[in-house]
Amino acid sequence: MKNIAILGASGYTGAELIRLISTHGGMRIAALGANSKAGMDMADVFPFLRHLDLPSLVTIDQIDWTDIDLCFCALPHKTSQEVISQLPATLKIVDLSADFRLRDPKAYEQWYGNAHSAVQMQGEAVYGLTEFYRGQIKGARLVAGTGCNAATGQFALRPLIEAKAIDLQDIILDLKCAVSGAGRSLKENLLHAELSEGANAYAVGGTHRHLGEFDQEFSAIAGEPVRVQFTPHLIPANRGILATVYVKGDAENIHAILSASYSEETFIKVLPFGKTPSTHDTRGSNFCHIGVTGDRIEGRAIVVAALDNLTKGSSGQALQNANLMLNLPETQGLMMAPLFP
Amino acid sequence: MKNIAILGASGYTGAELIRLISTHGGMRIAALGANSKAGMDMADVFPFLRHLDLPSLVTIDQIDWTDIDLCFCALPHKTSQEVISQLPATLKIVDLSADFRLRDPKAYEQWYGNAHSAVQMQGEAVYGLTEFYRGQIKGARLVAGTGCNAATGQFALRPLIEAKAIDLQDIILDLKCAVSGAGRSLKENLLHAELSEGANAYAVGGTHRHLGEFDQEFSAIAGEPVRVQFTPHLIPANRGILATVYVKGDAENIHAILSASYSEETFIKVLPFGKTPSTHDTRGSNFCHIGVTGDRIEGRAIVVAALDNLTKGSSGQALQNANLMLNLPETQGLMMAPLFP
Amino acid sequence: MKNIAILGASGYTGAELIRLISTHGGMRIAALGANSKAGMDMADVFPFLRHLDLPSLVTIDQIDWTDIDLCFCALPHKTSQEVISQLPATLKIVDLSADFRLRDPKAYEQWYGNAHSAVQMQGEAVYGLTEFYRGQIKGARLVAGTGCNAATGQFALRPLIEAKAIDLQDIILDLKCAVSGAGRSLKENLLHAELSEGANAYAVGGTHRHLGEFDQEFSAIAGEPVRVQFTPHLIPANRGILATVYVKGDAENIHAILSASYSEETFIKVLPFGKTPSTHDTRGSNFCHIGVTGDRIEGRAIVVAALDNLTKGSSGQALQNANLMLNLPETQGLMMAPLFP
Amino acid sequence: MKNIAILGASGYTGAELIRLISTHGGMRIAALGANSKAGMDMADVFPFLRHLDLPSLVTIDQIDWTDIDLCFCALPHKTSQEVISQLPATLKIVDLSADFRLRDPKAYEQWYGNAHSAVQMQGEAVYGLTEFYRGQIKGARLVAGTGCNAATGQFALRPLIEAKAIDLQDIILDLKCAVSGAGRSLKENLLHAELSEGANAYAVGGTHRHLGEFDQEFSAIAGEPVRVQFTPHLIPANRGILATVYVKGDAENIHAILSASYSEETFIKVLPFGKTPSTHDTRGSNFCHIGVTGDRIEGRAIVVAALDNLTKGSSGQALQNANLMLNLPETQGLMMAPLFP
Repeated sequence: MKNIAILGASGYTGAELIRLISTHGGMRIAALGANSKAGMDMADVFPFLRHLDLPSLVTIDQIDWTDIDLCFCALPHKTSQEVISQLPATLKIVDLSADFRLRDPKAYEQWYGNAHSAVQMQGEAVYGLTEFYRGQIKGARLVAGTGCNAATGQFALRPLIEAKAIDLQDIILDLKCAVSGAGRSLKENLLHAELSEGANAYAVGGTHRHLGEFDQEFSAIAGEPVRVQFTPHLIPANRGILATVYVKGDAENIHAILSASYSEETFIKVLPFGKTPSTHDTRGSNFCHIGVTGDRIEGRAIVVAALDNLTKGSSGQALQNANLMLNLPETQGLMMAPLFP
Repeated sequence: MKNIAILGASGYTGAELIRLISTHGGMRIAALGANSKAGMDMADVFPFLRHLDLPSLVTIDQIDWTDIDLCFCALPHKTSQEVISQLPATLKIVDLSADFRLRDPKAYEQWYGNAHSAVQMQGEAVYGLTEFYRGQIKGARLVAGTGCNAATGQFALRPLIEAKAIDLQDIILDLKCAVSGAGRSLKENLLHAELSEGANAYAVGGTHRHLGEFDQEFSAIAGEPVRVQFTPHLIPANRGILATVYVKGDAENIHAILSASYSEETFIKVLPFGKTPSTHDTRGSNFCHIGVTGDRIEGRAIVVAALDNLTKGSSGQALQNANLMLNLPETQGLMMAPLFP
Repeated sequence: MKNIAILGASGYTGAELIRLISTHGGMRIAALGANSKAGMDMADVFPFLRHLDLPSLVTIDQIDWTDIDLCFCALPHKTSQEVISQLPATLKIVDLSADFRLRDPKAYEQWYGNAHSAVQMQGEAVYGLTEFYRGQIKGARLVAGTGCNAATGQFALRPLIEAKAIDLQDIILDLKCAVSGAGRSLKENLLHAELSEGANAYAVGGTHRHLGEFDQEFSAIAGEPVRVQFTPHLIPANRGILATVYVKGDAENIHAILSASYSEETFIKVLPFGKTPSTHDTRGSNFCHIGVTGDRIEGRAIVVAALDNLTKGSSGQALQNANLMLNLPETQGLMMAPLFP
Repeated sequence: MKNIAILGASGYTGAELIRLISTHGGMRIAALGANSKAGMDMADVFPFLRHLDLPSLVTIDQIDWTDIDLCFCALPHKTSQEVISQLPATLKIVDLSADFRLRDPKAYEQWYGNAHSAVQMQGEAVYGLTEFYRGQIKGARLVAGTGCNAATGQFALRPLIEAKAIDLQDIILDLKCAVSGAGRSLKENLLHAELSEGANAYAVGGTHRHLGEFDQEFSAIAGEPVRVQFTPHLIPANRGILATVYVKGDAENIHAILSASYSEETFIKVLPFGKTPSTHDTRGSNFCHIGVTGDRIEGRAIVVAALDNLTKGSSGQALQNANLMLNLPETQGLMMAPLFP
């Protein structure tokens, strides 16, 4: 039984980690840190966890790290790097924030607007897209969870870029994103009254921070600079990202490449050619569904990927990585079916 | 490993059973019956189950019962009694329909409008409200799953009626019900366009069939006829029943009785006095949350119970009963935390 | 053309007033006050009003009252009394806050927890439930808009209490309330992620402030103290209140009384006996639908009332009252049909 | 006062027409046709119209056309052409179906899969995109309402194609569509339980019928064949289309062209450069909001258009056209503000 600490346990990704770990079987939650709600019981912060016998929330500096095997860090961006740089140097860490996703300090500064306060650790961190960094993650001390949008787009595109099966200069990602990706933030546009019953684009024009991850990863794979167009949209749902990716290439070839790439992957399911996925079918699970279709215009293809932003896009991915780091079966605690309807 | 058959696998409760069994560990789905969609793959009927290696749908008469240990019957009312009466006489069966809930053939006929076609089995069937019929269920061959509304109301009221802690002549149940309780029926009022963004009462005036269960059970406990007022309302949500129960009695006494009654129950959680539950906190799980509060008018109390109609209200209950019938741990496969948000 | 000012124009009820007035034909919006967002254009605060040629938001003390015929005050409770007591003494005012609903300073203090700072005006204010205070409203200088829950419950009950057609000691109101009634408040439980897909009771046990209105009004009608039980529930919808009212009395008599009482009212529609209304059918309109049904238990009846909390429950009611105060046709600007689906 | 008939009054677009006409002031609804529900009262078919004094539904052949000034035909595709070809030859008709949108019989056959049964009328019909066919519509006898998706895309693109301001070979339309566009159809994927809380693409790969309209209109404007890529997505909302259009061209130039094109249009609002619209802000209204933004990749622009599919996309457009055909002010009955929240 591995001892686990979760920092940032009063947010959605922290709560999702607890949900997953509660039936994992090989992990014990030993400490829950949440500075702003320290002293509270989880049953009061998240009543849906009422049935669990959990430690009360404490401030991070109250945690005794002696017997902790791994720490999930679900803190806000920027806070995360400050906290992590103060943790014991031998502690295994899965960070769910954006702080260690970008390896290049300049890229970090460009996208996040501040100098990184733990530059030395940026190099050490392994990018947490499990299916593509599995080997490195197994031996890593610090794994940086990916952005949820970044994960979805990469599942659709990485094998295609690697195979040079598409025009690298003309990739458009149109994402439909559920609201839990914004976290438990108190903003007018996240209120039920203002979000339900409609849709809108946000972070338009190439300003969304997850573009930093796309640039880093796609350019590395291609061996040349690749810049994609990426427009996220907020839709009235709580969980789920649907990425519609417009590419130029042969649709059947694209389908074949994706099918082959993921044929051994437990969590990535490529649908039969011509079928497209729905976020309804991945909700609450660690699965990602990918569909490919052609277009009436020759040489065009559409790749659609669906996953749950809180599970496969964040906390499920984090647990998958933790399993690897702790030498546990990679899929342990992650095989629950989606919730439908 | 127990071999399981599910009849009615193309409906919501059938699919929910598959979801739950997929991580149960002690059951293997050996046959899936669904006459209208026989021949189809489950991945096409319910793409959210795509990751599972399931048998294709077959007609019921194609099923070889030889090695089946238990059959879940998730067929429509009336069809169920016809099918079940033709199944092997030694087969263990958990029926999720309404057909065997009422022990009295006349009561059945009154509420369902037709004579029962398997009267002889009505007496054999055990009422499936696990927490109150546990002993009988363990030895039963045929268990009749309760109505989802009926389960919610009984969790709130049974211990109070048994203790005579409330006025038995003046009990009002106001239920807020999510739409999946109506099943996968194609009706205008179940369309997203007509259900979302509003609320309405239905089956008003004491006409809802689950009243037959309330009458049967509450009268049996009280040892005298008890008739409650019960009005269900449809709200724009997919899973969840919130029962607001208005009773006359001492609120703190009521809370004490409920707390004591359920203190050893894994799935029934009584909240601290004065707190009330939310269906958000039970979604997708087998838990039922119950809260009690007083009112400014002395001698009045409000009991609020929340559960997921598809899980604790139907398929989760069915699996809990099946575990007992198969001599497996009662909670096996049912400990997943609710999905929030 | 009457000149209108709206204070609190950056909230939902303020915006709803602008929506309604935009096609009223007899009113011109001359000033929009909103201290916290002063200086902003309405197109930025509420882009749905972009097509209108509206004055920019100003602080309240920047408004020149010289030519203003009537002021709608859609400010928060407590702020409202402070602001209104400083407005010109001859200005006609429709207040949408709770500040002048209760005539008794002690009742105000009991329910709102602070002494009233404009006690002298409490007596002057006329309670704004148009259908029952029409005569007084016509001559009033200050009208106090009712609570939206209070309005819904009163439409269902006032004629019955007046006719003594029901047991006054045993009235239960179970309300299902959409979230816009909470205003544009930034609270976790109002986020889409936490509100959608579920339901819960709030202000349980007789603690909701609108009970002060029920007590005042029902006791006055009955000529004796009447105290009702009232439990509001939050449901995942933006507009609409459904009040399910449990009473003891003869259902057909109750239906006859309500039908007769409202037969001449434009906005109150009593459905045929046995039918119950849906909030879907009143959304965005000034109509209130009321249905009556009996119960299988003799001597019980259920009255269900539905209206849009922002329109008939608040800003529509306010406009209806303003029409009367300005000697305009009562229904002017209020005849738009509900929005369905 | 003009006498109006509506055929297909039991569907959503028929009901929306009644909603709009109810406060129009210059139209009287003289006949409501709906074969399948003939004999019913509208208050039973659509209780939200209960407050109106409407004729009961009749079969189409029961309608006396003598004094009818204009007929709205909101019948299903294919039925519409059969019915319209039998109506009096002098009757003014606004058809809301797809039957007369395509001028070329071969194109009709290609997209709709059957030969047109009223070919002679195809040439007579004027395409109903008011802002671009205003002159012809004024003198038309038969106007063919556009597809709702087709309208949204054309508002975003027509001025750009005409000005040759974008690359005509590389236009991608990604649409997010609310469910009422599918009408009152009873299909599993339109149920609340299966539509809410998720998103998916449909009619992928260039198979959606509205492409026929894009081809016809864009090619005519450009003077050369133009074929766009168009992928609609179903989102959990009832009203609204958000079109995200990816084009190659100078974003500021594009914004300038759109702003100039629509500067005199009452219903088309171009937002300041860099702002994008939300369907929340057009719901229930006849307005269309358009925003333009550049991208970090030079030479790329994103045009986002939002409107209500049932109003500006269908019944509002139809009424706007009817106003022109009847020599009434074009905006009469259409100036209601959107409903928010």
